[in-house]
Amino acid sequence: MTHPEKLAAIRELMKNEGVDAYIIPSADPHMSEYLPDFYKSIPFVTGFTGSVSTVVITPNFAGLWTDSRYFVQAEAQLKDSGFELVKLRAQGMPEYIEWLGEHLQQGGKVAFDEKTVSVSLGLLLAQQLAFKEIKFQHSDYVGRIWENRPALPAEPAFLLPEEVVGQSVQSKLAVIRMSLAKQHANYHLVSSLDDMAWIFNLRGQDVGYNPVVLSFALISESDVKIYIDKDKLSAEDQQTLANQGVTMLAYDLLASDLQQLPSSSRILIDPKRNCYYMYKQLTKGIKILLETNPSTHLKAIKNEVEIANTRKAMMKDGAAMTKFFKWLKENIGKVEITELSAAEVLKNFRAQQEGFVGESFNTIAGYKAHGALPHYAATPESDVTVEADGLFLVDSGGQYQYGTTDITRVIPMGNNTEEESTDYTLVLKAMIEGCKARFPKGTCGYQIDAITRKPMWEYALNYGHGTGHGVGYYLNVHEGPHIFNASATPIPVELDTITSIEPGIYRIGKHGIRIENLVLTVKDESNEFNEFYAFESLTLAPIDTTLVKKELLETSHISWLNNYHQQVYEKVSPLLNEEEKAFLKEMTKPI
Amino acid sequence: MTHPEKLAAIRELMKNEGVDAYIIPSADPHMSEYLPDFYKSIPFVTGFTGSVSTVVITPNFAGLWTDSRYFVQAEAQLKDSGFELVKLRAQGMPEYIEWLGEHLQQGGKVAFDEKTVSVSLGLLLAQQLAFKEIKFQHSDYVGRIWENRPALPAEPAFLLPEEVVGQSVQSKLAVIRMSLAKQHANYHLVSSLDDMAWIFNLRGQDVGYNPVVLSFALISESDVKIYIDKDKLSAEDQQTLANQGVTMLAYDLLASDLQQLPSSSRILIDPKRNCYYMYKQLTKGIKILLETNPSTHLKAIKNEVEIANTRKAMMKDGAAMTKFFKWLKENIGKVEITELSAAEVLKNFRAQQEGFVGESFNTIAGYKAHGALPHYAATPESDVTVEADGLFLVDSGGQYQYGTTDITRVIPMGNNTEEESTDYTLVLKAMIEGCKARFPKGTCGYQIDAITRKPMWEYALNYGHGTGHGVGYYLNVHEGPHIFNASATPIPVELDTITSIEPGIYRIGKHGIRIENLVLTVKDESNEFNEFYAFESLTLAPIDTTLVKKELLETSHISWLNNYHQQVYEKVSPLLNEEEKAFLKEMTKPI
Repeated sequence: MTHPEKLAAIRELMKNEGVDAYIIPSADPHMSEYLPDFYKSIPFVTGFTGSVSTVVITPNFAGLWTDSRYFVQAEAQLKDSGFELVKLRAQGMPEYIEWLGEHLQQGGKVAFDEKTVSVSLGLLLAQQLAFKEIKFQHSDYVGRIWENRPALPAEPAFLLPEEVVGQSVQSKLAVIRMSLAKQHANYHLVSSLDDMAWIFNLRGQDVGYNPVVLSFALISESDVKIYIDKDKLSAEDQQTLANQGVTMLAYDLLASDLQQLPSSSRILIDPKRNCYYMYKQLTKGIKILLETNPSTHLKAIKNEVEIANTRKAMMKDGAAMTKFFKWLKENIGKVEITELSAAEVLKNFRAQQEGFVGESFNTIAGYKAHGALPHYAATPESDVTVEADGLFLVDSGGQYQYGTTDITRVIPMGNNTEEESTDYTLVLKAMIEGCKARFPKGTCGYQIDAITRKPMWEYALNYGHGTGHGVGYYLNVHEGPHIFNASATPIPVELDTITSIEPGIYRIGKHGIRIENLVLTVKDESNEFNEFYAFESLTLAPIDTTLVKKELLETSHISWLNNYHQQVYEKVSPLLNEEEKAFLKEMTKPI
Repeated sequence: MTHPEKLAAIRELMKNEGVDAYIIPSADPHMSEYLPDFYKSIPFVTGFTGSVSTVVITPNFAGLWTDSRYFVQAEAQLKDSGFELVKLRAQGMPEYIEWLGEHLQQGGKVAFDEKTVSVSLGLLLAQQLAFKEIKFQHSDYVGRIWENRPALPAEPAFLLPEEVVGQSVQSKLAVIRMSLAKQHANYHLVSSLDDMAWIFNLRGQDVGYNPVVLSFALISESDVKIYIDKDKLSAEDQQTLANQGVTMLAYDLLASDLQQLPSSSRILIDPKRNCYYMYKQLTKGIKILLETNPSTHLKAIKNEVEIANTRKAMMKDGAAMTKFFKWLKENIGKVEITELSAAEVLKNFRAQQEGFVGESFNTIAGYKAHGALPHYAATPESDVTVEADGLFLVDSGGQYQYGTTDITRVIPMGNNTEEESTDYTLVLKAMIEGCKARFPKGTCGYQIDAITRKPMWEYALNYGHGTGHGVGYYLNVHEGPHIFNASATPIPVELDTITSIEPGIYRIGKHGIRIENLVLTVKDESNEFNEFYAFESLTLAPIDTTLVKKELLETSHISWLNNYHQQVYEKVSPLLNEEEKAFLKEMTKPI
């Protein structure tokens, strides 16, 4: 079927059921960042392959809402599809709801697959469209027209031993149950796959980059059921789970179990991390507490083993980065290097490190103007040759069996302009402002975000993305609940959490600069005024200083940079040969 | 009746009605900051006179929850009252709800006067106590035992002419109705008195410091009713309102009118600015939109007339402050000066200015250790003599017919210590950081708060209050919706809003330092990165520089201060005599 034929087929189904609008979100029942092929409905229906968008189909309109990152790509991919691009004003906002409110008739009917809508979004739709008395229906029209739909992934999965994760499943369940008791909940549904991975010390490879396994858990005061294709696990691992009191049930049995919960239940459900479908299986009378998963909070706070292992991952990753910088410097202009080939070389340097599992996300290797495209990932079509000129932005990371990394560096390739040097210095200054921040206990991410941006705001510069995100332990490179951005997210920055600090400047058509370290929140001074916290940079890789304009920095920034580079040399050089050591020594010399 | 007798009488009423807990908040049906005497229930019942607290009475416990500002006072005032102090961990948090959750039996009954509970709080109580299936009852037991309860205020009120406020009532109603239409609401209830004052260009003196009038409004698409004791207004003003299509009804008729709204209504109610009682008058079927009052947003954005008039108020206020500083310097050690007498002198200097109406709040004049008590207000009992030694903190403001002021300055009286100088300089640095901030459109108050605090955090210092609050125009000195504090309040800093910037350092037993200017949000540079905003200091009064340690400031802070002082001199000196001019010249000389 062509895309217009698929659109016509969906409209036919809508017509038969009296549906006025059909919504297709890009999501799965676990609210995952990376979707299994089974849930890649929007590429199937429209041809658009961007990571985030929403499709709305009515009898006489078919639109795809996406943000500025994807405008060019969407225009191209939607050509002749029957779908038109609707440009989002703000990334991630469900602006199509406003459109529906304007275009639907009073009492109209809207359908969507409730498995692909979060509880929050389902409730928001109902609330925002109530003024037109809109009715809602659960329908997976895409599934009904999708011949040869890919199967759900069935990749092997495994348990991590306690020595590697630092905490037993029993101990984690005990803390979760304490949190449930405090919130007067006697049931708890977990759908988010990184929460599942953390609670059950479970890892797998069902989706790209995130080492997770499709599964759900239903936790009560007395027992724990996980819904999973148990063939993914070895017999030994199955036994281990059983020994911990975990009952394993088929993945698709959750819905009926939810329907049978006693009406006296009080169930805690994270509205952002569960789908509306499961929420709606809960029968009348059940009290639903819409709160963040206890495990999401707990997972963010790394234990001693996780921190020690992550430090090791950072040394290995820093060694790989150093080798990459050296290779690039020595080979540029001599052999053909492109964005893609450079990314491949970097991946290979990481793969040489013991315990490397894979990349933690698709490397962003953006040369010159490509660096200015947020979330640019080179494809064979877009790939360009990197030359001894301009700036080369590389944002990459690794999954190791003992931690997850994420690092951005910008490499001056040569002939750099004044503007490039100024921008580079101001990005570095902003990153250092974030990294060297001291702040009282209770400070939230939006406050760190403001402090990091301030040196840029002084020059009337800014960046359109957040300053930083939480990072998992051999788990998702993006994890909550804390985040460093401008949004009013009232999550304090807790001790022992790992977060990125990654300000940037993007000049469309010219260059992009972003410098990123991961930091650990640590204790600082305590006094009559407060208990203060600070950040320790976990990332250990040199930051090129050749473009730095010292006159734009204060003494405190220069000291920070020189101290940081001393640390990098001390910790990474033991993993390098003599030539590499000399190279690193030069890159980390004081300014 | 003694306090224990009152407590016994309330417990008797509770027992008769099978009530397990009775809550007395400090609030009125308008959620006012300053209560009419009629609503001063807590002082009546317990003897405690602090501005904010909550009382909870059960058959075997009677507690008063208040914050650290009032611990000493509450301990003293509650002695032998039958009530005990419960110390709040966090100011303003309803921690007694947790206590109720722990102490009530399953299915218990809680009573309170719904007129003294906000919609938010009423809903929170119901939600937080649902796990124990608590039932709620509306009862004003205080009213039932209060013989000779003070009457509601009946002070004269008046309308302000359009020339003074810059916008007609019709025009304001039109914008409010546009906002209602956009939110699909056809009714809107207004209870907050500053919103009433703004919408109807109405002022009065029903409560202290805030020039407002007890009243409500019910606004529909076609008409407007205000509920007010209309005898407060002149016949001419009554006619003016009638000519604008406003129907005036008795203050106590609102509840029955709400009961009679058609069930198809969609009513917008601000959950923080309305009482639960009125909310509960709305019958089943009515759709209730819990959103901030449109007028609260509109009121914060000052029009040209309001801004021009406020600038005038600032000059007059700066002249009064200058005279006060001069008087203090010339008389200290010569005549007896106390905190109270100094505040009185300052009030008199303000009263000499044309159009002075009164103080905008109770002056905080705190000498030495008193300056470290947040919200300290001298009483005849606490009053101390101010001497030529230490620091004197004065936080004061005026209501003028053309604007509202709020300013804090700290006056070095002599023999100042190194610590005082360092603290003074760091507070000044923080205030300047806030005042000179440049930030992109969309920035929220919590971001300005972080930028202002950062210079203090670097020294492991902090302050326990917010950085700033919105300020009204000849209206409340504290007004929303925007606020500069650490809370996750997602209200952007809009152009033409007025806010205070007032960081501080408080060393218990030693001194308190706070420096406060009011700032106007103005346009700054616009470019490919964003539209940037900045602040213009509206407050025009010298900042004592004798303690400033220049080495703790950067060049940009010194420039800001010198430029500011030049502005102060230029604008205020024309209102001064020659001697005063010379004094101001000296105080504002560049550092």
